[in-house]
Amino acid sequence: MNIFIKNAEIITMDKENPVISGGNIRISGNKIVYVGKDGVPCESDKIIDARGGIVMPGLINAHTHVPMTLLRGYADDLPLHTWLFDKIFHAEDRLDSDAVYYGAKVAMAEMIKSGTTTFADMYFFSESVAKAAIKAGMNANIARCVTGKEEDFKERLNEARALFDEYNCENDGAVKIDFSVHAIYTCGKQAVRETSRLCKKLGANMHIHLSETMKENGDCYAEYGKSPTEMFNSWGVFENKTNAAHCVYLSENDMNILKEKNVSVSHNPTSNLKLASGVANIKEMQEKGISIAIGTDGTASNNALNMFFDLKLCALLQKGIRLDPTIVSAEDALFMATVGGAEALGRADTGRIKEGNRADIIILDSFAPSLIPVHNPISLAVYSASGAEVKTSIIGGRIVMEDRELKTIDLEEAKAKVNESLKRMKLI
Amino acid sequence: MNIFIKNAEIITMDKENPVISGGNIRISGNKIVYVGKDGVPCESDKIIDARGGIVMPGLINAHTHVPMTLLRGYADDLPLHTWLFDKIFHAEDRLDSDAVYYGAKVAMAEMIKSGTTTFADMYFFSESVAKAAIKAGMNANIARCVTGKEEDFKERLNEARALFDEYNCENDGAVKIDFSVHAIYTCGKQAVRETSRLCKKLGANMHIHLSETMKENGDCYAEYGKSPTEMFNSWGVFENKTNAAHCVYLSENDMNILKEKNVSVSHNPTSNLKLASGVANIKEMQEKGISIAIGTDGTASNNALNMFFDLKLCALLQKGIRLDPTIVSAEDALFMATVGGAEALGRADTGRIKEGNRADIIILDSFAPSLIPVHNPISLAVYSASGAEVKTSIIGGRIVMEDRELKTIDLEEAKAKVNESLKRMKLI
Repeated sequence: MNIFIKNAEIITMDKENPVISGGNIRISGNKIVYVGKDGVPCESDKIIDARGGIVMPGLINAHTHVPMTLLRGYADDLPLHTWLFDKIFHAEDRLDSDAVYYGAKVAMAEMIKSGTTTFADMYFFSESVAKAAIKAGMNANIARCVTGKEEDFKERLNEARALFDEYNCENDGAVKIDFSVHAIYTCGKQAVRETSRLCKKLGANMHIHLSETMKENGDCYAEYGKSPTEMFNSWGVFENKTNAAHCVYLSENDMNILKEKNVSVSHNPTSNLKLASGVANIKEMQEKGISIAIGTDGTASNNALNMFFDLKLCALLQKGIRLDPTIVSAEDALFMATVGGAEALGRADTGRIKEGNRADIIILDSFAPSLIPVHNPISLAVYSASGAEVKTSIIGGRIVMEDRELKTIDLEEAKAKVNESLKRMKLI
Repeated sequence: MNIFIKNAEIITMDKENPVISGGNIRISGNKIVYVGKDGVPCESDKIIDARGGIVMPGLINAHTHVPMTLLRGYADDLPLHTWLFDKIFHAEDRLDSDAVYYGAKVAMAEMIKSGTTTFADMYFFSESVAKAAIKAGMNANIARCVTGKEEDFKERLNEARALFDEYNCENDGAVKIDFSVHAIYTCGKQAVRETSRLCKKLGANMHIHLSETMKENGDCYAEYGKSPTEMFNSWGVFENKTNAAHCVYLSENDMNILKEKNVSVSHNPTSNLKLASGVANIKEMQEKGISIAIGTDGTASNNALNMFFDLKLCALLQKGIRLDPTIVSAEDALFMATVGGAEALGRADTGRIKEGNRADIIILDSFAPSLIPVHNPISLAVYSASGAEVKTSIIGGRIVMEDRELKTIDLEEAKAKVNESLKRMKLI
């Protein structure tokens, strides 16, 4: 299908020309073929009048665990150890692929409704996530998480390999399969080395947890005498394009390694606050030139998948705790949630509205009161939007939501199936 | 009109019985007359089926400056002094009552759409705010701000008095007129004393800014040798029920004074981060037993009026900066945004869903993906909702939004008038 979007305030994410006022976009197939002030529709075009509303790249959620949607609100406000060992692990043991498939659909419905077009997932039952992403028409980097201090990692790595073989580049490249070593505290040297080698051999991306908590760092120093970043570096993880989630506790040397190895950092400000992990040093990472993306983390530790929340929080938090209102500007934060996300996920063809890129685009309602008046579209997108303003979402040239109506997900069915599954698993 | 809401997960805010599952509510006139599991509709009732969705008290925005909606996104990410003196004051000088009237309507549309039913405003052109609130059907505490170090405050105080005489208790008590001394750095002793005395004589509420920044405290100590709280206390402000916004920098003695004088603190976490003021010590205030409410502040420093954002941020922020995930629970934050707000605004008859209270109620969409599944309604309301889930809003028994459609505000007109005004004032 060809789509022509007219009369838009286009946030391009092009540094030279960040906003085109009164602009038009033409989409042909899955690509953007025209962006500018001219351009007229063809006869075959579906025409969408943005009515002066903001049109921008779909947001990229660079770190989440989609299946945890089943556990949204299951356990909150608890000490980390109680939360994880008494609640989350216990509940995760009961999950199955059917529950995850429908939970993933609910998650994707939430993401689409709040402006996300692309996400990076790391969990298990990943085949269910891949199937749901294909059905929903979302762009997804999906990794079957590898854990294991001994030989026990092998079965998981085999699953990850099978996932890659079956789903990588599916749905016209919308689905990419990543590899994942879960974290330094759950993986031994052999698991890390073998996963990294296989990832490299297959030319895939790596997705890891890195220095999320002080305890993680402390335990790593106690065991190895080095930081998690130093250990992963020495074990070859960063020979792959790596998306490192959290990075709350990085030394200067860690940052230098991440910069040198072109590692992307996925900043998860909500999760880091909610689990009381702390606040990542985004300003220092920016100064080092490290590529930064934003993620929501899973709904057990956020408890939403709404990137507009995390985008705003990212810009606010650094200012407030450093008492400097000029740092992490609206532009900076939006860059992280779009271009930075695309870099983290190894997707050079999304995150910007430009000719030749994939048509991953959201259209905001110009009559949403939170977006009135329009002094500055980028400020509105970052500080004023909540996600409710997203009217229409286009992913790879396909309209997945129009006028708030989901086109690719049967939410009533997904909700019913999720509730059935939770009852079956005695989780509700 | 009588309204019967059925099949709801009712968040009552009653500590003994916080959630009624499968509950019903009957509204008669402007009051709630039944809450419980029984109750059947009368013939005359309009019946709303919540379909298992969350029904909760409308949120209370305890501190905002509604007319600043005209300046949403007008200036961001600047040093405080540049922002205030070069941008905001300069723009405020151009505002007029017509612009403020329509700007206030846009603000109220945003508040209703994101679940706020009651707000406390402090600004000027307050008559326009009052007129807009009456038209929109919102509950509003409105104060014409008094400033002045010399005799120049008198005209403003006269305006505040005239506002009280004309609008207090209008619209069946939905509008209440407060008095306001703006802040220690803009008001002299005489302005504070006379405003406080008049407020007391009329039995009104007081709304102030208090210890928002370190500079405010430092300047106050330099001038008076005491803190802003101590000065206001000595000048009689707290002889009135007072709603003190910000309170980022309070000493232990300040907190003791606020507790003793039954002052409510309006916590504005977004604004305090965005302007790099800092983070209020909510945990200590809770331990002292100080009544806490939540506010968004104006859209020039937030830049939204979406209480669901500030509610979630309030719960997150204290945990993250104190590295303790157990503090400021979801229940605590929601209490602040409902019952705490009602206390701050001197409105004992709202903030809870209980028989005899005003019918200030919001109904959340049970098919919003962000609210699936329902392990814990309070957790969903605080951590998962973004405002987009608010389907229907009832204020004082009147339906002001149904199925996301605003019933009392012509938003297309308001948007057009706002844009006309901004052009006239050369602000756009």
